Amino acid sequence: MAEWFKEHGEKDDVVLSTRIRLARNLKGIPFPNKMNADDAQRGIDLVEGALEEMNYTFTKVDLPSMSQAEKQKLVEERYISPNLASSSLPCAAYISEDQKVSIMINEEDHLRIQCIYAGFEEQKALELIGRVDDYLSEKLDYAMHEKYGYLTSCLTNVGTGMRISYMLHLSATVMSGAADSVFAAVAKLGATVRGMYGEGTKSAGNLFQISNQTTLGRSEAEIAASLGETLGSIISKERELRAKLSEKKGLILEDRIMRSYAIVRSARIMQSKEMMDRLSDVRFGIGLGIIDDADYTTLNDIMICASPAHISADFGIDGAVERDVKRAEMLREALNR
Amino acid sequence: MAEWFKEHGEKDDVVLSTRIRLARNLKGIPFPNKMNADDAQRGIDLVEGALEEMNYTFTKVDLPSMSQAEKQKLVEERYISPNLASSSLPCAAYISEDQKVSIMINEEDHLRIQCIYAGFEEQKALELIGRVDDYLSEKLDYAMHEKYGYLTSCLTNVGTGMRISYMLHLSATVMSGAADSVFAAVAKLGATVRGMYGEGTKSAGNLFQISNQTTLGRSEAEIAASLGETLGSIISKERELRAKLSEKKGLILEDRIMRSYAIVRSARIMQSKEMMDRLSDVRFGIGLGIIDDADYTTLNDIMICASPAHISADFGIDGAVERDVKRAEMLREALNR
Repeated sequence: MAEWFKEHGEKDDVVLSTRIRLARNLKGIPFPNKMNADDAQRGIDLVEGALEEMNYTFTKVDLPSMSQAEKQKLVEERYISPNLASSSLPCAAYISEDQKVSIMINEEDHLRIQCIYAGFEEQKALELIGRVDDYLSEKLDYAMHEKYGYLTSCLTNVGTGMRISYMLHLSATVMSGAADSVFAAVAKLGATVRGMYGEGTKSAGNLFQISNQTTLGRSEAEIAASLGETLGSIISKERELRAKLSEKKGLILEDRIMRSYAIVRSARIMQSKEMMDRLSDVRFGIGLGIIDDADYTTLNDIMICASPAHISADFGIDGAVERDVKRAEMLREALNR
Repeated sequence: MAEWFKEHGEKDDVVLSTRIRLARNLKGIPFPNKMNADDAQRGIDLVEGALEEMNYTFTKVDLPSMSQAEKQKLVEERYISPNLASSSLPCAAYISEDQKVSIMINEEDHLRIQCIYAGFEEQKALELIGRVDDYLSEKLDYAMHEKYGYLTSCLTNVGTGMRISYMLHLSATVMSGAADSVFAAVAKLGATVRGMYGEGTKSAGNLFQISNQTTLGRSEAEIAASLGETLGSIISKERELRAKLSEKKGLILEDRIMRSYAIVRSARIMQSKEMMDRLSDVRFGIGLGIIDDADYTTLNDIMICASPAHISADFGIDGAVERDVKRAEMLREALNR
């Protein structure tokens, strides 16, 4: 099985990925922000024991033995969070055999179960993560409140503990200057817009994460349906604006897209930020049918594989300039086929 | 025979063209700045009569019947001057069968005989223009002063009436920040540096014209030798700086060159100024051996054929945007072979 970002998904002209995570905690162990190393180890042992018996194989990621670049690589692939990568407590991560599910132990909560698919795959993701959660809830004693639901370290997660995040490519929304109004409308509908790597991060390459704000007082299905509706209107708007831009500024757009495509296939030095911006144009060009010899999967793949930590870990390169040179080489190789 | 800019020449890594012009006036007719239409026509008739008998065929350019774009096209090809193209006096231009020599009548002087070659071709140019001048001096009564030599409208041309101009591509001199000091040294050696289209014009694409300042008190051969020496040192300096830049900033330079090359082969809209700058990088890339599937002649050719008046005249395009679109198309066609 390949990593999620090497696969195709639905509606991938706008939706890069569907990610769902559940926050769970274990009864009788202090929350991670209050726990000591012994508590932390106890949590790991409990979860690991449960996973070993499961009919769906998880591989432990040996975080303590990994370099910072190797951990960061997993962050870039979205299997673990930046917090886990820099945690000083005993912590752990497990990745499923099909590379769709990862479980972090002792991140903000004892368990962060997450599931990720390329494209728009809400149903598949809900189903798979539900299966893992159902299994674990039988083996582990989750901290729950009869009225509120799952208890979590941060109040914003109490209830379902569920956050669904869609990574979206909103090039036309941004280019048309409609981003502010669209995002304001999204916020009114109870969803949150964030940059690529979560809270407090900036957008790069016109990529945005849209996720549900509320976890409490509604069922998982209700939350998913409500966010799905919001998502639908963002996608429609983006597609509508793409068509409009293409009609009104066709040639200017084509010029910009073909220049970016030429540059990613020719440059000898390429910084990460520029790669994101150029690939955003290329992605737009594929959507408009201007570029027909590249596909979304190739872009998703190279975008992640040419991220800083990937280059550092995979090629043993530390210097920023050397990394930019390697990135340019990787882009030429991936896009000149 | 092809136009001069479709041919190869010596030292064309730095020298785009060698141009020599002679200023001559006819005895008994007021200088152009004082002449009336009858005087002007008399001059034309005299020269035309002389040319008809010559054993080297000249074709008359029918200026009065030409559109402004068609005249400007001849300016871009350097066969006539901007002044002649906009003259209100009766004037004329003749181009030789091999397209190496052109003669303008009633520009600043009664006759401006000029000869142009691609690359560094001082000897060929001196020889050919000398032959035409010798012939005409037998047929026409040139205005001369026993002591000073040929009389001209402007004092700066009195004497030999000769100006030799080399069009140079000085990318490394400019990029290294050495242009000011090199040009100051050139001025001390009695040469003038100007932009691409002569006096008062700016440089585009790192192209400069170097020409002799003095026309008086020295023979044609002495002037040519002295300018040739200055030219030699500019060429050496440029080549030396190219090697240095390539050694010190090889990758940055390669990145810049390959991006420019990719852009001229992919853009959908290209302004004239950008074309000049990008082609300057491509030219540099050919010189450094980074680009091996393009040659100087192709660049010279497209640079002139995609100039504004060429596009207007050849394709009947007047709007600036439409012209930029056509230019991009021409570049893609010329450079994607």
